[in-house]
Amino acid sequence: MDDEPACSIERSLQILGDHWTFLVLREIFAGRHRFAEIQTSLGIASNLLSARLKLLVAAGVLDTRTYREPGSRPRQSYHLTESGRDLRLVLAALQQWGDHHLPRPSGPSAVRRTSDGDRPVHVGFLDEDGREVPASEVSILTTGTPYETA
Amino acid sequence: MDDEPACSIERSLQILGDHWTFLVLREIFAGRHRFAEIQTSLGIASNLLSARLKLLVAAGVLDTRTYREPGSRPRQSYHLTESGRDLRLVLAALQQWGDHHLPRPSGPSAVRRTSDGDRPVHVGFLDEDGREVPASEVSILTTGTPYETA
Repeated sequence: MDDEPACSIERSLQILGDHWTFLVLREIFAGRHRFAEIQTSLGIASNLLSARLKLLVAAGVLDTRTYREPGSRPRQSYHLTESGRDLRLVLAALQQWGDHHLPRPSGPSAVRRTSDGDRPVHVGFLDEDGREVPASEVSILTTGTPYETA
Repeated sequence: MDDEPACSIERSLQILGDHWTFLVLREIFAGRHRFAEIQTSLGIASNLLSARLKLLVAAGVLDTRTYREPGSRPRQSYHLTESGRDLRLVLAALQQWGDHHLPRPSGPSAVRRTSDGDRPVHVGFLDEDGREVPASEVSILTTGTPYETA
């Protein structure tokens, strides 16, 4: 692991928690579905990767499909479920935070755009009408106890 | 740790990663700033809490203030910086995912509202005009390689 990874999700996770689970998901979002290609891309030990994939399948975040290459035994590939695809927002929020607060001189390693119009997209708070609400105007209320807003 | 924590952030983090760092932040967002009150609330070992707080201060997510209670030595309390406050969006995205995909029969443990009008608030993707963009219409592009959108 470099001191300063190019990926802002990775930089965020060096501060925010065990990064492997999120990085495994990032690889699958990027279209890597097979154990060997995820392992090669991340440089993760196979026992760690195996444990993470098992947990994500058990949690319903991933499901498996069987594939078979000529001359090989059948193997499993890993795919996002609906629950897994919804984690795109969590990954994007981590990425956005990393780009803003742990920036690299060379700029963001990834950008978010609308699929059709190539317009920039960010993550934020929205009201029921789909309009942005500034974070400073959002309260998180838990069993009667307001979370601090600042 | 319960099998099914009431807090959806905590449920998300049981799948998504080392939960302590995010839970320490949740406590500080909830207005707990002193080592002893964070430790009591989370039931975290003091060496783990001390390490997490040190990391978050070094990363500029928290800063410290000195306080002194009568008859005690001066101590540090922990407060969110601007960078730390911006993690509200990441925590809210985790919470929203947990509420949706790991629901409890008793409902969400926390809700997001506008501070003024008590209107429901959610986390989503937005374009430059502050209008919501469906997640299925967002592409994440990294050095020329598009992330899968489904």
